[in-house]
Amino acid sequence: MKDENCFTTVEQMEADSAKLYELSKASGAQTWEDRNKNQTPHCKFGEEGVCCRICSMGPCRITPKAPRGICGADADAIAGRNYLRMVAGGCSAHSDHGREICHTLYAAKADGYYKVTDTVKLINLAKEWDIETEGRDIYDIAHDVALCGLNEYGKPFGTQKFLKRATEERQKTWEEQGISPRAVDREITTAMHMTHMGNTADAEALVRQSLRTGMADGWGGSMMGTEFTDILFGTPSVRETEGGLGVIEEDMVNIIVHGHDPAMSEMIVQASEHKDLLDLARSYGAKGINIAGLCCTANEVAMRHGVKMAGNFLQQENAILTGCVELIAVDVQCIFPALGPLSECFHTKFITTSEIARIPGAIHIKMEKENALEQGRQIVKMAVENFANRDKNKIFIPKTKEKAVVGYSCESILKQLDTVTNSHLDERNTYKPLIDCVTSGVLRGAVAIVGCNNPKVRPDYSHIEIMKKLIKNDIIIVASGCSAQAAAKAGLLSKEAKNLCGAGLKRVCELADIPPVLHMGSCVDISRMMLLATGIAKDWGVDITKVPVVGCAPEWMSEKAVSIANYVVSTGIDTYLGIEPQVKGSAKMMQLITQGTREITGAGYIINKDPHELVQAMIDGIEAKRAALGI
Amino acid sequence: MKDENCFTTVEQMEADSAKLYELSKASGAQTWEDRNKNQTPHCKFGEEGVCCRICSMGPCRITPKAPRGICGADADAIAGRNYLRMVAGGCSAHSDHGREICHTLYAAKADGYYKVTDTVKLINLAKEWDIETEGRDIYDIAHDVALCGLNEYGKPFGTQKFLKRATEERQKTWEEQGISPRAVDREITTAMHMTHMGNTADAEALVRQSLRTGMADGWGGSMMGTEFTDILFGTPSVRETEGGLGVIEEDMVNIIVHGHDPAMSEMIVQASEHKDLLDLARSYGAKGINIAGLCCTANEVAMRHGVKMAGNFLQQENAILTGCVELIAVDVQCIFPALGPLSECFHTKFITTSEIARIPGAIHIKMEKENALEQGRQIVKMAVENFANRDKNKIFIPKTKEKAVVGYSCESILKQLDTVTNSHLDERNTYKPLIDCVTSGVLRGAVAIVGCNNPKVRPDYSHIEIMKKLIKNDIIIVASGCSAQAAAKAGLLSKEAKNLCGAGLKRVCELADIPPVLHMGSCVDISRMMLLATGIAKDWGVDITKVPVVGCAPEWMSEKAVSIANYVVSTGIDTYLGIEPQVKGSAKMMQLITQGTREITGAGYIINKDPHELVQAMIDGIEAKRAALGI
Repeated sequence: MKDENCFTTVEQMEADSAKLYELSKASGAQTWEDRNKNQTPHCKFGEEGVCCRICSMGPCRITPKAPRGICGADADAIAGRNYLRMVAGGCSAHSDHGREICHTLYAAKADGYYKVTDTVKLINLAKEWDIETEGRDIYDIAHDVALCGLNEYGKPFGTQKFLKRATEERQKTWEEQGISPRAVDREITTAMHMTHMGNTADAEALVRQSLRTGMADGWGGSMMGTEFTDILFGTPSVRETEGGLGVIEEDMVNIIVHGHDPAMSEMIVQASEHKDLLDLARSYGAKGINIAGLCCTANEVAMRHGVKMAGNFLQQENAILTGCVELIAVDVQCIFPALGPLSECFHTKFITTSEIARIPGAIHIKMEKENALEQGRQIVKMAVENFANRDKNKIFIPKTKEKAVVGYSCESILKQLDTVTNSHLDERNTYKPLIDCVTSGVLRGAVAIVGCNNPKVRPDYSHIEIMKKLIKNDIIIVASGCSAQAAAKAGLLSKEAKNLCGAGLKRVCELADIPPVLHMGSCVDISRMMLLATGIAKDWGVDITKVPVVGCAPEWMSEKAVSIANYVVSTGIDTYLGIEPQVKGSAKMMQLITQGTREITGAGYIINKDPHELVQAMIDGIEAKRAALGI
Repeated sequence: MKDENCFTTVEQMEADSAKLYELSKASGAQTWEDRNKNQTPHCKFGEEGVCCRICSMGPCRITPKAPRGICGADADAIAGRNYLRMVAGGCSAHSDHGREICHTLYAAKADGYYKVTDTVKLINLAKEWDIETEGRDIYDIAHDVALCGLNEYGKPFGTQKFLKRATEERQKTWEEQGISPRAVDREITTAMHMTHMGNTADAEALVRQSLRTGMADGWGGSMMGTEFTDILFGTPSVRETEGGLGVIEEDMVNIIVHGHDPAMSEMIVQASEHKDLLDLARSYGAKGINIAGLCCTANEVAMRHGVKMAGNFLQQENAILTGCVELIAVDVQCIFPALGPLSECFHTKFITTSEIARIPGAIHIKMEKENALEQGRQIVKMAVENFANRDKNKIFIPKTKEKAVVGYSCESILKQLDTVTNSHLDERNTYKPLIDCVTSGVLRGAVAIVGCNNPKVRPDYSHIEIMKKLIKNDIIIVASGCSAQAAAKAGLLSKEAKNLCGAGLKRVCELADIPPVLHMGSCVDISRMMLLATGIAKDWGVDITKVPVVGCAPEWMSEKAVSIANYVVSTGIDTYLGIEPQVKGSAKMMQLITQGTREITGAGYIINKDPHELVQAMIDGIEAKRAALGI
């Protein structure tokens, strides 16, 4: 039995990083630790959200002596506008990723490189959207569904189709509060327009548009991203893999895939299995080709192919520092521009593939749908041919890695729950067994832990500490994004992590044969979590706000996280943040995001930089929800 | 004859402002001058564009010791991203304004408050867009045209329809350079996505997307705004009005309309002519109801109704300081949030009407299309009933005002040019007479002067100095936005301004019966200028870049101006800026916007804060273009 002391600790991860950092200096490399030191302390005006650069009269900054900008905008207006613009940035990132996947599905064909994999999901979605399916070619249906999805980004009238998936109460709340999102891109434009010089200065109106713009992400662009990805590449199913820098193999050609949109990584994974390329790798003296993922791309390919996960956001440079990465191929989002100069310190080839993310120092191979597999092969071949260029003096691969079980889509979870029901007596395909565990108190509740790393807190520490405390307290976790990878590195995605749980959760893990932290995918897949919470609420027969489920982003960094937080709160789920949104300079904005939204959606933020206090607040929040339900 | 010394000078305007400022202190008012003092000096990092607040790891700021942010973004990436986000903000503002007008046209009906006024323009546009017109009800056509316009914001495929209006060479350039804009909102989303943490760090790619996003504004949203406004409220025609604070009348009920979208101001203007409301005003002892405009709303209602223009951007507070403004009603953009507290120092009622611009301290009356005239009446009535509440001790109206001729749409210009042709011999409805003047040297060229005020330079001074020098040098001017109003205040929109011109331009003014500065409308109407330049290029038979026409924004302030500058440059027209774009911290960005774009579009920025040097550069630029043409 793997006991508590056998799991990889943050201290071990930090020791690996420290060793890599130390060795990197010989290669002339600079890493985020160096830059973070140079950038600290940060500008207080920016940190508190009271610096306005929205027009060129400024910048203006709010101080007690200068309580308004030149136009008269006060701290509330400035912090509120900056906040809404963060949501607009985040929504645009997720949604544009979702759109790209829609276009990929639109281009899918029977003899193309992109095919329909999950026909059941496609047909279900077609039916949901009133698209004719009877007797039609699957690619004709796919084409119509994709077109319908693309129109969700720009239709001149109406709100997002997926809103209808929510509970009746939620839909009513959204409608009454005026936060049902219209076309995805329109909400982004509205957000940018409202925050333009000389427009909205009222913080509440800005917060409301933040909720609506977030909704356009979570119940629009992100949800489409998830659905169409599943249709194209398969709905994730439970499978085993490994996580940690130790997944990089010294005797193999190592290719890192990094970013978010799986259209690129899927092709590289496929190409890496081609016999001629494997033979080529062997001809160079390698034992094979090892693909490992970083950030959300890791999540995507792990949960569909079992590809190993090298690490999360702040580990991206570490992968290169091992000296054993022949090539790193990236698509969009969370790519350090630092990878350009860093890869030049090693033999690593750095490949960009998207017009959305052009980065100096990279070789740019624009992925084209009609040519994608050839391009995947080209990239893999470049990596293989680079194997011989390793500098043996620069090699150090930390051994640390952990087993992980990944791929808990809603479908997988329901399937897993079916295993604990009696097929002759019980209802199938329902969250009721889970709900029974919660109402009986065997489980106290659930937490969705998501989001990034951020040097403002000790990297991964908050993720892991919070998870450990929650599972010890019989609270089950669903995780995505960089948080899921922190869990992977710490062994919390392994079934053996049941040994870290309280008695109730441990029993559930054993009975259902699951780890206590369920890997739900990438950051667009937080839409899965919204559907999971909705499914539970529906099966429970209560509004989502009442279910003892909360969200947590302990180390968030990107605008996407702010957008996510807005749709999670809009969905009625309290959101616990370990990093302060940059609005502290406005007491009104702080009040609005922590309390004010409760009057709009029934939920709000709870903010605390101390992970131990944050997790205690979560446990208290869950217990309060239980008490209110009388359970 | 009105000689050079009889025109209102900047010094006189400043004396008026100084007097108002001095008196305002007794009312406890604060104005932009106070706030500007408090906000100066500005943060250098922001001014130079090297402060990044795009994720919450920062803010990061570039210094020689910290040449990269935490993610590795350098000065080029940071300044480039900030710049593209400004374009996205500006494009969203103009385009969303245009969309709102599309929706207004979509809602137009024969018995509604919004009607089709210019049926010829509607039918021409329908034909241009292949919409059936034969034998159809005009409102059915309007409905289809509006829907087609609305789809330009969100269609999943294809580029902007209006691009086809450009010269063949331009269209080819845009296509080859990849800057033909797709759906308007999509370009905004793409811009926001590209600039999201971990995406594009390559300055050139960011500049290219800036051009494309600007194009989505100028040849998309703005152009639709102009076209649909003309269809709804009439294409502007030449008419006389007045400009300057002196248009506020002490013995009348004064209502200021301020903002951009004429849907609100049109209703107020209509309501102010209703007999019962005029009677009501008289019953309160007023001689009548005086509507005066501020900013672009002033331009809109001046050129369609001859409504007087109280002033431009930095004059908005001055209007209230006169103590004689009963009500100020605003819609969107360039509204000082300061109007909230300022109006409380006077009897002035401050009314917001758009969900895009909610401002604390305002009474909010959300304009609804089906109820618009009643709401216009409600607003006028509030103003009338407020007449009695004036504080006599706070009244001071500067006497300064000038005559102005406004309303030079392309259609008006062509009509005016027809007056100098011989209807029996010459081609009609052509820019050829104008071209003849330029080729012969009677006129040296033309400059489009646009944009805002900005306290970073002496307000209005640059506008007026530049205009005076240009017309003295036989360069004709088209002006819009706050620049047109600076011209109005200085008397440069009056026909008598011919006396300030060189001999050639003076003769043209006399022959064509025009002022030397032609008022072309509001800031969305810069799309008219693109069509004017295109029309001239087509009639001339040369590419736009070759025509001796340049653009100038001497005192720009808003993100809209950055978007405009991008589409003007994309159209092949050099753009002279009197305020530096906030990218100076990146030598590469400075190179790209001044030189780099020349390889993409044939045009770029020339930047100089000294108006005298800037105007000389323009004259030299025009002469160089003439020389290249051999004229």
